[in-house]
Amino acid sequence: MRVEILCTGDEILTGKTINTNYSFMARRLNEVGLDVHWGTTVGDDRETLLAAFRQAGERADAVIVNGGLGPTVDDLSQELAAEACGVELVLNEHWLQRMTESYARRGRVMPANNRKQAMLPANAEFIDNPIGTACGFAVTIGRARFLFTPGVPREMRRMLDEQVIPRLLKLSGITGVTRLKRFHSFGIGESRADEMLAGIPGLAIDGDIKLGFQAHFPQLETKLAIRGADEADLERRLAPVEAEVRKRLGNFVVAEDNQSLEGVVLDALKTAGKTLAIGETVTGGIVAARIAPLAGAESVFKLGTIAKEVSAEALRKSSGADIALTVDTKLEDEAGTVTIGIADGAQTIKREAKLVGNRDWVRTGACELGLDCLRRHLLGLPVDERIDFERR
Amino acid sequence: MRVEILCTGDEILTGKTINTNYSFMARRLNEVGLDVHWGTTVGDDRETLLAAFRQAGERADAVIVNGGLGPTVDDLSQELAAEACGVELVLNEHWLQRMTESYARRGRVMPANNRKQAMLPANAEFIDNPIGTACGFAVTIGRARFLFTPGVPREMRRMLDEQVIPRLLKLSGITGVTRLKRFHSFGIGESRADEMLAGIPGLAIDGDIKLGFQAHFPQLETKLAIRGADEADLERRLAPVEAEVRKRLGNFVVAEDNQSLEGVVLDALKTAGKTLAIGETVTGGIVAARIAPLAGAESVFKLGTIAKEVSAEALRKSSGADIALTVDTKLEDEAGTVTIGIADGAQTIKREAKLVGNRDWVRTGACELGLDCLRRHLLGLPVDERIDFERR
Repeated sequence: MRVEILCTGDEILTGKTINTNYSFMARRLNEVGLDVHWGTTVGDDRETLLAAFRQAGERADAVIVNGGLGPTVDDLSQELAAEACGVELVLNEHWLQRMTESYARRGRVMPANNRKQAMLPANAEFIDNPIGTACGFAVTIGRARFLFTPGVPREMRRMLDEQVIPRLLKLSGITGVTRLKRFHSFGIGESRADEMLAGIPGLAIDGDIKLGFQAHFPQLETKLAIRGADEADLERRLAPVEAEVRKRLGNFVVAEDNQSLEGVVLDALKTAGKTLAIGETVTGGIVAARIAPLAGAESVFKLGTIAKEVSAEALRKSSGADIALTVDTKLEDEAGTVTIGIADGAQTIKREAKLVGNRDWVRTGACELGLDCLRRHLLGLPVDERIDFERR
Repeated sequence: MRVEILCTGDEILTGKTINTNYSFMARRLNEVGLDVHWGTTVGDDRETLLAAFRQAGERADAVIVNGGLGPTVDDLSQELAAEACGVELVLNEHWLQRMTESYARRGRVMPANNRKQAMLPANAEFIDNPIGTACGFAVTIGRARFLFTPGVPREMRRMLDEQVIPRLLKLSGITGVTRLKRFHSFGIGESRADEMLAGIPGLAIDGDIKLGFQAHFPQLETKLAIRGADEADLERRLAPVEAEVRKRLGNFVVAEDNQSLEGVVLDALKTAGKTLAIGETVTGGIVAARIAPLAGAESVFKLGTIAKEVSAEALRKSSGADIALTVDTKLEDEAGTVTIGIADGAQTIKREAKLVGNRDWVRTGACELGLDCLRRHLLGLPVDERIDFERR
């Protein structure tokens, strides 16, 4: 099935807003087995928008339209969808009532121009928006089914998962449920991870379980996307593959799904009942800034220092914390030497690594290496396992 | 003139890479008076790419194509441009030689597949790329002039300014040179800045000098784009308007052009020959992380601390720094109270502000407020001027 994404709005067209809605939608569709073939961006202009609807209607089987559902005069999606279909706009009483009630609950009167958001093409299928005033709808233009979604990212994301993807899967003849399992790793690049996972039955870019990678330096995200008849079927097929991936990526996996490395470190400290101090040099606070603001960190995080020289054991003693982590970085041309220190009273562990890259990359890598060494230490894993970003 | 941007590549189409090239190009064109009317994204697929070239060639006067000029088999731009034009690919001897020499200078032999990057449509106009192996070119497809640029952001940006924009301005009949003057402010929103600048002769969204805003919370960028016959003409017309904008935005301007707030603060400290210590609570290192990593900060930045409580005067004494800045934040539901302290030995200044927004916004705002108070103090400006983000 040929799916297209059509993004509307002057803010996107002029580049004032970076189009993260497009990339989010395309990735999400890809994860459930739907491929996007074409993307279009047009502004809030009648003639252009109508042309874009018609051209997409000739090329695609399904088109997700994003934006243009607001209450103001420059929001044209409903009106031009009706024009492209050759029908009138009709008031959707149900949606008008929902909006009115939603305003009333917050003790406010609905502004008159919100009524426009309940005017849908006469032939439209209503699509619910549980968290906003812009409802979605679907119509057929040319040979394609058009699904209209609001531009507000939070609303779009929820509607995409709950309303749009199920409809697209049905249109495409794909049935069942989907799940996305994610592993966050530090220390291995995409090609190495790909090699490490080679030969797992059913797991491949075009396999039964779809394997994908997304690099956000210094972390790599490994994604397993699966579609099945029902949740039990997913679970049964995913569990052994998930376990094998976890085993093969091994100590490099720092977190899974919605976890973060810093969250895992904080949880391990809480479980052990230990407090922490952090000392940094040229990372200048970015290590502490990953831990200190977390919910619940106030009971664990005792002190952070940024100075020209740091010693883990001295910091542990002066701060009164149970464990001190120091991240000391010496910047060179297109590289840097990072020295991690962890003092816990019983011992002081040292890990040195030469990282390659510009100043920003070295600092970001140093921060990640420091947190990862602390994670490994707290979980009883080796802290000196070689990572892909270091030169030995 | 109708200008379109056509971005190619599976990484962009599938959303794996966020399309920042598009937004950069669209903004840059807008700044020189060229409006983008349509954006298209397609993957590395022959049929789709050819269709995209032909459809854009029917709609537009000029099309910037981005990507697909690499040495590998999935880079199809030259080949399909030739097919759309109905001509053969021909070796560009000049570019082959340039690439060969460039490899030789780095002591390497050019890989054979790079030769593909010197194969251009027979009717193509060569467009130079001074910093990469993917040269650009221009051909006419349908009624539009197509200008091909590489996907590597650094190369695209340089070629856009040096090669593409001058050609587009010529095509559109716009002559002369352009300049973009930028002011970075903290503490005023876009609508307030717009009001503050109302009525400056010649300065407007559609004026002789084009006014634009871009909000990157917590800063606002105010842009003056001007086109003129030559540099002297630009200077003569821009200077009085620039001075008036600077005067009206007044103390809220934290930096101009390529300057940053933290850079301005560092420069002021260097000029005054003063050293600095920074103390933070729940911002957890993000204030120090703005200053400490700057080139030259090592002679100025003495110490950073992150703790549950901070006192500017106590920190100044214990650190031995000339000036201590403290940023203390208390988070509430959808708000936060920020207390800034500045101790310089002669006095301790306090500034308190209630900022609205979620945890991330309050922390980001607190960091900016701290640095801005220090800037104001160092430059002899009032530190307690009300900002738009605070509730009083």
